[in-house]
Amino acid sequence: MNTPKIVKTRAELKAAMAAANPGSLGFVPTMGALHSGHASLFKAAREENELVVISVFVNELQFNDANDYAKYPRQLDADVQLAAAAGVDIVFAPEASEIYHAGLPLVKLDSGALGEMYEGASRPGHFDGMLAVVAKLLHLADPRRGEYRAYFGQKDAQQLVLIRRMVADLDYPVELRAVPIVRSDKGLALSSRNALLSEEEKEAALVLHRSIQLIAGRAARNEPLYIEDAIGMYQMEPLVELDYFVVVNPDTLQELAFNCQDTPFTGEGLVLVAAKVGNVRLIDNQPI
Amino acid sequence: MNTPKIVKTRAELKAAMAAANPGSLGFVPTMGALHSGHASLFKAAREENELVVISVFVNELQFNDANDYAKYPRQLDADVQLAAAAGVDIVFAPEASEIYHAGLPLVKLDSGALGEMYEGASRPGHFDGMLAVVAKLLHLADPRRGEYRAYFGQKDAQQLVLIRRMVADLDYPVELRAVPIVRSDKGLALSSRNALLSEEEKEAALVLHRSIQLIAGRAARNEPLYIEDAIGMYQMEPLVELDYFVVVNPDTLQELAFNCQDTPFTGEGLVLVAAKVGNVRLIDNQPI
Repeated sequence: MNTPKIVKTRAELKAAMAAANPGSLGFVPTMGALHSGHASLFKAAREENELVVISVFVNELQFNDANDYAKYPRQLDADVQLAAAAGVDIVFAPEASEIYHAGLPLVKLDSGALGEMYEGASRPGHFDGMLAVVAKLLHLADPRRGEYRAYFGQKDAQQLVLIRRMVADLDYPVELRAVPIVRSDKGLALSSRNALLSEEEKEAALVLHRSIQLIAGRAARNEPLYIEDAIGMYQMEPLVELDYFVVVNPDTLQELAFNCQDTPFTGEGLVLVAAKVGNVRLIDNQPI
Repeated sequence: MNTPKIVKTRAELKAAMAAANPGSLGFVPTMGALHSGHASLFKAAREENELVVISVFVNELQFNDANDYAKYPRQLDADVQLAAAAGVDIVFAPEASEIYHAGLPLVKLDSGALGEMYEGASRPGHFDGMLAVVAKLLHLADPRRGEYRAYFGQKDAQQLVLIRRMVADLDYPVELRAVPIVRSDKGLALSSRNALLSEEEKEAALVLHRSIQLIAGRAARNEPLYIEDAIGMYQMEPLVELDYFVVVNPDTLQELAFNCQDTPFTGEGLVLVAAKVGNVRLIDNQPI
């Protein structure tokens, strides 16, 4: 098994990339606490590129809750093991002082209306902080020659929309790839937060996938969606508190007019759901 | 004399840069209406780089006044002549639809407090709009190999501070160069807007440079600055209406404590001045 090179500074990262001198580089930014969902990103990068670089950095700017930031799992040794198994070449694991070398940003990314909807409504500032670090990391991991691709999970659908938009709006010289959600055998979307669920809560949490499947099935058959049926499924799960269940335009995140109407579904959409199970907030989604 | 290649699209720009395959590239973004101040930027880029690329693009996002945008001089033929004489290799002169190919930005640059001071106070949104286009252009002109430098005039001191900060905060892979102000024989800082001044107004406008020189001389001799003396000079110029005259920290733009005190000047500062002469707003500055 391949052993990834671990680098801590931007200078070491640059030197390691220059030494490899790849014709193509695949980059996957992460916050660590890696699971099979991340591994699927690494493998997608491995298939398309000569060199695979990942970053492991818990970015304080995207936490609106200091306690949540403090508690976020940090397990670099285990992360490196998982990265090794997925064929990663370089793990960039910087300290905050290395990333924010000039202090916290004064010129900021503003995610605008796209960043205030859905997850942004529950986590003010989250998406601006996420963009701040992704904007830096896409530059730090830039091979400066050859092909350059970056991989993001479809799981964080709103994050992906915002990163796509940032790359288009700032004309970053990188190709973005979205990698499908990885699920447990029963259908639960993999997330670092699932570890915080009891067995009973995990069972209850399956309603997210079930409710999405109901709507996705109707969409596939071009039937009216009758979203209220999906929302009704949550009333039978006392452990699950629904935040939102919507069908939106995949680029603008604006709600589509199919939501509560008799109109047969046509075209493209994205089903987005968020719910609290116990103290754990879960999200899921599916393009339709 | 060298004849620059004129390119209109990002694809043409990319192809022209790839064909040149330079070991080093110097880039100068402009809004056209070029004068000797711009020529000094082009020459600085020419001295240090194998390939010199400039852009000529009047960016509507940085005008807070639609009329000002409409009236801004557009004179590509004359600009290309001046660029040719200064040794420019490629002139990128895109339409707005080419720059804003995905529509106006939804993910924006936020210049924060630095963008609200001084010029930002008179021109709300100006610096955010300026950063939006510079963020794109620095990517579009990126040679993707070899050395990459971008040149900006010291004349627009606050703009330069914000671009430096954006490059640091987003870790753009480009080296920035500041090029000193070019002045008329009598000391007036060159600006496209000077063409709008009458002869009498041009004479009166020399107070900007004279007042800066007074303070710069005291700073060079480590004397107290007594800025009120500089401000007093404007009371003798009825054609000139002073907006601000301040001595600031060159990185943070915060006013220094030397402004109205008996303290001898030490360290570094930046004298910033803005004034209206007739209907024309002029700015000038000098590092001390």
